[in-house]
Amino acid sequence: MAISEKVELLIKEILDDRTHGASQLARQALETLKVAAEESRAEGVDQFWTEMEEISWRLMSIRPSMAPIYNAVKRLLAAISDDKYQDLDSLRQAAISEADKLIQSSVSAITQIAVHAADLIKSQDIILTHSYSSTVAMALRSAYKKHRIQVIVTRSGVGRTGQRMAWELNYDGIPVTFVDDTAMGLYISQASKVLVGADRICADGGLVNGVGTYLLALAAKEAGVPFYVLCETLKLDFRLKSSEVELEEKEPNEIAQPGILPEGVTVKNPYFDMTPLKLITGIINEHGMVQPPNLMTDLEKLIAQFG
Amino acid sequence: MAISEKVELLIKEILDDRTHGASQLARQALETLKVAAEESRAEGVDQFWTEMEEISWRLMSIRPSMAPIYNAVKRLLAAISDDKYQDLDSLRQAAISEADKLIQSSVSAITQIAVHAADLIKSQDIILTHSYSSTVAMALRSAYKKHRIQVIVTRSGVGRTGQRMAWELNYDGIPVTFVDDTAMGLYISQASKVLVGADRICADGGLVNGVGTYLLALAAKEAGVPFYVLCETLKLDFRLKSSEVELEEKEPNEIAQPGILPEGVTVKNPYFDMTPLKLITGIINEHGMVQPPNLMTDLEKLIAQFG
Repeated sequence: MAISEKVELLIKEILDDRTHGASQLARQALETLKVAAEESRAEGVDQFWTEMEEISWRLMSIRPSMAPIYNAVKRLLAAISDDKYQDLDSLRQAAISEADKLIQSSVSAITQIAVHAADLIKSQDIILTHSYSSTVAMALRSAYKKHRIQVIVTRSGVGRTGQRMAWELNYDGIPVTFVDDTAMGLYISQASKVLVGADRICADGGLVNGVGTYLLALAAKEAGVPFYVLCETLKLDFRLKSSEVELEEKEPNEIAQPGILPEGVTVKNPYFDMTPLKLITGIINEHGMVQPPNLMTDLEKLIAQFG
Repeated sequence: MAISEKVELLIKEILDDRTHGASQLARQALETLKVAAEESRAEGVDQFWTEMEEISWRLMSIRPSMAPIYNAVKRLLAAISDDKYQDLDSLRQAAISEADKLIQSSVSAITQIAVHAADLIKSQDIILTHSYSSTVAMALRSAYKKHRIQVIVTRSGVGRTGQRMAWELNYDGIPVTFVDDTAMGLYISQASKVLVGADRICADGGLVNGVGTYLLALAAKEAGVPFYVLCETLKLDFRLKSSEVELEEKEPNEIAQPGILPEGVTVKNPYFDMTPLKLITGIINEHGMVQPPNLMTDLEKLIAQFG
C-alpha cells in the first residue's frame, strides 16, 4: 500500500523528535492517523482498515518508551472498530472525528492536571523541574497567575530540553534559574517542591521520564522535598513492569561529535531512566492526585475506568 | 613589588584551569613559588619574605575550594620559616628545594594511593568514575596492569573533564564507556565500585569534589555499590565544616552562550558539590584506607601526623 508523503513526514517527525513530551507526540500520532484517514485512497472498508492498522503499528513501534502513543492509537482503533461502520465513508468520518475527540480530551486532560498541580503550589514556592514537559510548563504558568513562585530548570540531558522550558517560563514572566544537571543535588535544598512530567508509568508504578529524573528523585528524597509527577491517564501503561521496559537510546554522536572522544570508547546515550514508586510523593492526573499508600490501587482504578 | 610575568602567568593558569585536579594545581602552586624564589630580585630576607607571602596569599585565595593549594603553600611557608635561614641566598635555596620536596612527596602520595586503590580492584570489576582525577586515572592504570577491568566515565559537568579521563584510559587500552552525567543513575547498577577523587575533605568528613559527585554517591548508596574516595592527606582541610565551605562557581556563559537562554534567566554554574560522610565507603590516602566507623578519628590522626 502507498502511505502518502505527508503521513510519512508526520511519522518521521515523531521518530526524530528530541524536544516534545510524550503527550504531544501522542497527539501528533492521532493527527497522523487523521491525515491518513483523510488522504486514504482505499477502495473499501477492508483496505482502509489494513492501511490504518499498518500506520498504527508503525506509530506504536517507532518510540517504544512512549506509552501515550501506544495508548492513543489503541484508543482510536477501539473507537472505530465498532461494527456499525459498514461503509468506507462513515468509517473514514468516524476515524477523523474520533481522532479529533481524543486530541481534544488529551489537551483538556493537561489543562485539568495544570489546575490540580497549581492548587498544590503556594506563594513563595521554589519549584525544581527536570526534562521538558508541556504539562509542567502549563501547571507552572497557572500557578504563577495566582502566586509569586520561582522555578529552577535543569539543562535536562544532551537534548537540553530544559532550555525550551526556560524560554517558555521566562516568556510568561516567571523568575527562572538555569543550572546544569550535575547541580541538581546542590539546588534541591533551595527547592520547596519538585514537579516533573512523565513519559510512562509502569505496572509497578515505576516512572519513565527524561534521563536524570531518577537522580533528582533520590536527591529530593534525601532533602525531604516532595516529588510530584504530572501524568495524564494516557500515560499509564500497565503492560510492563519497570524491569521489563526497554529504555530508548539515541545516537552516540549527540554526546560526543566524532573526534571528541577516541574511537575505541563506547558511547551510550540513554534518553530515559526509571524512578521507582517509593521516591514519588504523588501522581497528579486529570482526575486529581493519587498518593501512597493507595497509589497503586488508585492507579489501577483509573486504568480500569479510562485505560 | 614586582611579580614577574612568568609567575603571573602560572597564577593565571591556576585561576583559569578547568581540567586539572586539585593536587595538580597544588603542585603548580608550589612550582609558582619555586619560580618566584628563583626570579626574585629582593635585596634582603625581609623583602623576599614579603614577596613570598604576597604570592602565597594570592595562590591561597584564587581557588578557595581547593584545600590542597592552601595546604601545600602553608607547608612550604612552614618549612622555610625556620630561623636558620638568615641570609637571602640560603633562604632562596631552601624555598626552591623545599618546593621540590613537597612536589615530589605529593607525586609519590598519588603513586601510593594508586597502589592501595589497585589492591581493592578485582578482575572483571566495572568501575564508575565522575570528574577528572589524576589520582583515579593512575589507580585505574595500575589496576589494569593486573586485572581485566572496565571503566564507565561520565561527561562530568560543563567542563566535560570526563573526556580527558576517557582519552587517558583509552590510551592505556582500558575499555571505556562514556555516558552523560544524567545517566549515572542508570549505569550505577552495572558498576561494581565507584572511585572518585577529591578536592577537599572537610572537618566533618564532607567531600568537596566535581559537581555531580553527590548525585553519584546517592545512586551508589541506593544500588549498594561501594563508593571510594581517593584523597592524599594534602586534601584534608579541617579548618571548615561542610556547611561553612563556599563552593566555587564559574562563568554562566560556560553553561549557556549568550542568546541560548533569554536575558532574564539567572544562570548558575557551580563547579563543586558536597557529599556527606555517610555516603562514603572508604577514603584511600597514601597511608592506606580509612573506613567507618573510625573514619573521622583516623583522619584526625593523619592530620595531626602529616597536616
